[in-house]
Amino acid sequence: MASAAMDAARSDAGSEPGRIARCLLLMADRLDDRRAGIAAVAHEETGLPLDPRLAVIEFDRMLGQLRQAAEGAKDVSPESWRQPLIDVDTNIRSDRGPLGGPVLCIGPNNFPLAFHAVSGGDFASAIAAGNPVIAKGHPLHPETGRLLAECAHQAVMEAGLHPATVQYFHHCEPEDGLRLVRDPRIAAVGFTGGREAGLAIKTAADGSGTPAYLEMSSVNPVFLAAGALAGDATGHAEAWAGSIMMGAGQFCTKPGIAIVIGPEGGSFVDAAAAVLGSAPPGILFSSAGVQRLSAGVEAAVEAGAKLVVGGRPAGSGFGFEPTLLEVGADVLMNRFDVLSAELFGPVGMVVRAEDLASAVAVAEMFEGQLTTTICTGSGGVDDDAWMALSSVLRARCGRLLENKMPTGVAVVPSMVHGGPFPATGHPGFTAVGMPTGIERFSMRRCWDGVEARRLPAWLQ
Amino acid sequence: MASAAMDAARSDAGSEPGRIARCLLLMADRLDDRRAGIAAVAHEETGLPLDPRLAVIEFDRMLGQLRQAAEGAKDVSPESWRQPLIDVDTNIRSDRGPLGGPVLCIGPNNFPLAFHAVSGGDFASAIAAGNPVIAKGHPLHPETGRLLAECAHQAVMEAGLHPATVQYFHHCEPEDGLRLVRDPRIAAVGFTGGREAGLAIKTAADGSGTPAYLEMSSVNPVFLAAGALAGDATGHAEAWAGSIMMGAGQFCTKPGIAIVIGPEGGSFVDAAAAVLGSAPPGILFSSAGVQRLSAGVEAAVEAGAKLVVGGRPAGSGFGFEPTLLEVGADVLMNRFDVLSAELFGPVGMVVRAEDLASAVAVAEMFEGQLTTTICTGSGGVDDDAWMALSSVLRARCGRLLENKMPTGVAVVPSMVHGGPFPATGHPGFTAVGMPTGIERFSMRRCWDGVEARRLPAWLQ
Repeated sequence: MASAAMDAARSDAGSEPGRIARCLLLMADRLDDRRAGIAAVAHEETGLPLDPRLAVIEFDRMLGQLRQAAEGAKDVSPESWRQPLIDVDTNIRSDRGPLGGPVLCIGPNNFPLAFHAVSGGDFASAIAAGNPVIAKGHPLHPETGRLLAECAHQAVMEAGLHPATVQYFHHCEPEDGLRLVRDPRIAAVGFTGGREAGLAIKTAADGSGTPAYLEMSSVNPVFLAAGALAGDATGHAEAWAGSIMMGAGQFCTKPGIAIVIGPEGGSFVDAAAAVLGSAPPGILFSSAGVQRLSAGVEAAVEAGAKLVVGGRPAGSGFGFEPTLLEVGADVLMNRFDVLSAELFGPVGMVVRAEDLASAVAVAEMFEGQLTTTICTGSGGVDDDAWMALSSVLRARCGRLLENKMPTGVAVVPSMVHGGPFPATGHPGFTAVGMPTGIERFSMRRCWDGVEARRLPAWLQ
Repeated sequence: MASAAMDAARSDAGSEPGRIARCLLLMADRLDDRRAGIAAVAHEETGLPLDPRLAVIEFDRMLGQLRQAAEGAKDVSPESWRQPLIDVDTNIRSDRGPLGGPVLCIGPNNFPLAFHAVSGGDFASAIAAGNPVIAKGHPLHPETGRLLAECAHQAVMEAGLHPATVQYFHHCEPEDGLRLVRDPRIAAVGFTGGREAGLAIKTAADGSGTPAYLEMSSVNPVFLAAGALAGDATGHAEAWAGSIMMGAGQFCTKPGIAIVIGPEGGSFVDAAAAVLGSAPPGILFSSAGVQRLSAGVEAAVEAGAKLVVGGRPAGSGFGFEPTLLEVGADVLMNRFDVLSAELFGPVGMVVRAEDLASAVAVAEMFEGQLTTTICTGSGGVDDDAWMALSSVLRARCGRLLENKMPTGVAVVPSMVHGGPFPATGHPGFTAVGMPTGIERFSMRRCWDGVEARRLPAWLQ
């Protein structure tokens, strides 16, 4: 597998950008041709709503990313991810180019299309940078992966790239997967998933010096300043409760913890409880997920959190009640490891902070996050809170939001879906957004004194 | 130390770019004021030639880097390292900013000024990105480090930055150093030095998810195609022999291994032997260095290399004879680990390859390198050799050269002083070249829905 991919790497590295772009565009077209069938299978395998979630929203996102990656692949301008730099005096030129070996993409359970190992953002970025991909799908949606991989293979052949440019499998024993990660021919790894698996992959990749881009875990704290709560505690609570129920709470940007400052925090809890207490169960991906979530809620309660509503499996299938936990800032800080753990499902925790100082103390305890949100009141009433909180939080997260829930992740160049460890493995990159996402799977390379005719066209 | 640096990180992160630029410019001025004294001490401590090497060439390089970093620090244009991106429709903006904690810079023995932990490229880049620095100098030149650190401290105070923006020490037990690397408050590590220390630092940094930019080892192979040797074997041999003697062979870009293709390789060996056999000893930095080099040459001979000239310690002080080893491609490939090890000093090895296929087989065995050179004859005579070799070597090195020795590393934006593991720890970055080098010590950060007045000026 790795050996075939090395052949593809050598063969594709010389391809003109147009050919790689054509492959990505063809793939988007082939997928679009089979939209209804693929979405139906993904719905069956994941339980995610068919329409519009899978058949329209996520499908269009997947196609959009592939097409944006195609644009990126053929862009050779100074503003492109290739970053061509020419120093005429010294005849030293540089750009970004392919890594010389396959990128191993490992996909998650929660976005069977737009983050899939053989059709998602990591895949599109790796191909756009001129690399072959070895894709490992998720065992919970094997048939979806097979259909996506068929479209990828078809596009590779039609575009005239090396047949091993895309290789796919949907399951392996963890130890075999880690052996592949450690293979020195693997030039980079792209992973979206849970923390435990992510850390195991990171250790394996680190050992052989392989860059690994891992999106591992994040509780995406939301800080609500006193002025924001005084202004509209109910509105903020409804927005937050809605956000934690999106995708049954199985989004990596789910704002799992809300820190409310001051006495108005009580109204926030009441309003959130009203929303969550009357909402239908969220449907998780597996019975293992239901068990993990039950155990996580139980651990939080044992550590001192109060169960306000929900907390139990519900209904048929893999349902779980929308759940609200409440805890004091002092209790949270005492048992931070347990109480700040990610709970993957429709569960949120409100942390009651007496004042700004207490909220800042909580902020200082958070590890690296994908996102952090600060909700402020209007008219500058929370300027002090913004200053104090943002100075602690700015470098602790990839994306800092104001008065906006983090669950929507727009595919625009200015998006950063990244952040410091352990949210990801490196704070300098983003997994969403083109062409920025392509950079991850490229290397900086310099051409020093090389004859003009041997250079890539964009450096001549 | 880390705690004071965290205070500095929080305080400096809000500084306007002009203040950080001023600090770097002031530092360059203070250093220039004390040029003669500092260069004299560095000469005494390292044995490197005073004039022009230390007092002019390396000193100017150090000042130039600091001033280029100052330009970088205050540049807020779309082309700057900050990479500001504004999406007006979604009100999502992003840039690169400081890491939120100190950068630990660990300097080498071989460039006491331009790569020094408290005045070199890593230092200048880390400060330019808005980070505080904890600098560990090299124990072989403690007084040089003290003088440089004084200038840095003076500049920090004059510019009005936090006093803990620069902290300096020149020695510690390895275990204490690794404990500091593991400290989660250390936001990134910059290291230039040997492979053993580099790998220990990498393991420590990886364990806490800290990005480490390590420049560890490289033998910088030079491939000489048959046409190049037919054209001017003697000229190429003289250039190569001169290059391996620069800085007594203690450069990270020393082209330690020359692979000569075809029967004309014999003339190359003869000419290189003539140059190296008549040159004065190279003066190394320490007796430990002399011992390591003797042992390395001995190991190569035991593994099958022929000692053509030199091979022994020489003269007073830490001298070593310019040394030439010769080995067949088949012997090299059989004992690749021993024979391809970096020999830090005025020692070079010629590998005799019968034909292009044999040279390509050698090329496939090399790990990641800082540089690789291909020497070609004129008029397209070596086009096949270029194609075959460059397709293997392009992604194996940061900088690919044609008909040029790699020991000169120009400080221009298009320079790449980097490469795949184990030459460095990540192939996406460069340690030399502004403003590109600054990127290493920054994170991608996104501002989503944030009020305009809270944004950095360049995102408003």
